[in-house]
Amino acid sequence: MRLAVIGIGLMGGSLAMSLKKKGMVSKVIGVDQNIEHQKQALQLGIVDEIMTLDNAIAASDVIAIATPIDVAENLLPTILNLVNKQVVFDLGSTKESIAAIAKAHVNKGRFVPTHPMWGTEFSGPAAAQSDAFAEKATIICNKEQVDADALTLVEKIYQALGMHLLYMDAVKHDIHVAYVSHISHITSFALANTVLEKEKESDAIFELASSGFESTVRLAKSNAAMWVPIFMQNKENVLDVLNEHISQLKKFKASLEKENPAYLLELIQNANQIKRILK
Amino acid sequence: MRLAVIGIGLMGGSLAMSLKKKGMVSKVIGVDQNIEHQKQALQLGIVDEIMTLDNAIAASDVIAIATPIDVAENLLPTILNLVNKQVVFDLGSTKESIAAIAKAHVNKGRFVPTHPMWGTEFSGPAAAQSDAFAEKATIICNKEQVDADALTLVEKIYQALGMHLLYMDAVKHDIHVAYVSHISHITSFALANTVLEKEKESDAIFELASSGFESTVRLAKSNAAMWVPIFMQNKENVLDVLNEHISQLKKFKASLEKENPAYLLELIQNANQIKRILK
Repeated sequence: MRLAVIGIGLMGGSLAMSLKKKGMVSKVIGVDQNIEHQKQALQLGIVDEIMTLDNAIAASDVIAIATPIDVAENLLPTILNLVNKQVVFDLGSTKESIAAIAKAHVNKGRFVPTHPMWGTEFSGPAAAQSDAFAEKATIICNKEQVDADALTLVEKIYQALGMHLLYMDAVKHDIHVAYVSHISHITSFALANTVLEKEKESDAIFELASSGFESTVRLAKSNAAMWVPIFMQNKENVLDVLNEHISQLKKFKASLEKENPAYLLELIQNANQIKRILK
Repeated sequence: MRLAVIGIGLMGGSLAMSLKKKGMVSKVIGVDQNIEHQKQALQLGIVDEIMTLDNAIAASDVIAIATPIDVAENLLPTILNLVNKQVVFDLGSTKESIAAIAKAHVNKGRFVPTHPMWGTEFSGPAAAQSDAFAEKATIICNKEQVDADALTLVEKIYQALGMHLLYMDAVKHDIHVAYVSHISHITSFALANTVLEKEKESDAIFELASSGFESTVRLAKSNAAMWVPIFMQNKENVLDVLNEHISQLKKFKASLEKENPAYLLELIQNANQIKRILK
């Protein structure tokens, strides 16, 4: 199977490397506007060849779109114009909009909207990993608009990576990821800005930062070009969760201002219930 | 060297196990009001014997106070009344108040206020680890009020665990830890409460939770009995950072409400500067 990867960064690069390692793909063709990333991807052996979009589609059996979501949405109609029997899927973090764009296209059956729940805070081809994705979930959205053979192929790809599959309506997907992914990134970005604002003595942060600090702030390293379009597109859901989060923080603030340890205890014990969900 | 550990939980238990593994202590005496924790600590081989506080102090060379900070502060004068040549140190997350309590005592020279920057979100003796503390920092506060031999012994203990030592004024310590530790815990607790409030479908959280979510929320499992007194005592510093954090979150909110991707990009790129500090 010949794979074309559009956008050879953390996600696309990791997909290519992991599928090659599993023996699922014989050839990887890379498409990327960034000349430096093209070179790196070739040097690191992530892709076998760099091609233009048109040539890559003509020379491949399956096409993975792993660009930021705004770029993916712009490219999708062009890609669907060019495909024939090929299967196309994306790896983007929002699904409502791209699924709707696909639905309006005559070749909608060739496109599978997916979201593998894996990533790191790093970006670019140098951040790609050959043992990515395993034991995480992939969400496949709106499968009723997808051709049976295209769906089966994409399911096989993710299963080969050791992922488990979840099926979900694209609108519901975007609501859920606001809770379990997007808000985590916003709090982490905001926490980094808080510390950078308040703590001018960088040496002190560096020396004192415990593993707790590192785990809450590490997402703040995440790629702005990826996250701006995600937050903008999922604005309504993200704002809904963000408002709730600010109101939860204000409860902590009130418990301290009113010197009310019983209320603070209640807030923390409620938070401890997350143990039911995260082991 | 015979070590008494007052409070055999995550911190005290890990200290005992790690020092025994390093060959630094020949005997560990445990003191704990919790009968269940006493049993577990004996069964797990964390302590060799359980004693009352008075007997433990009489039978030991060095005494580590590893209780929640409010308990530590209540116990410290009693412990200092009982010591003679012994060295006492604590492992608490705030230092201004306990250093002041020690300073008012005639035996202040025997007490070393310390804060090892290590921990996990778990609690109790079963959470203790024998390879804890390594490669993290320990802060030693107000060393000018400590006897030279007591300081040297505590330095040797932490160095044996592979920690590097930082010296700091206790008041400054409490300001810094509000930034690099306490606020991380508050945001994590609040994030857990947000998700538990908004996302009633626990199965969806469980299935969708990515590693990003897990890393920002894992601290929300942390022990309420430990954290309530820390936040209450460090109230002024924590409120200062918490107010800044809420105002940073409101900037994200404004960028979304006003559909201003350029501002959102600026906020995220500023947050990315944390890379300078966290590799």
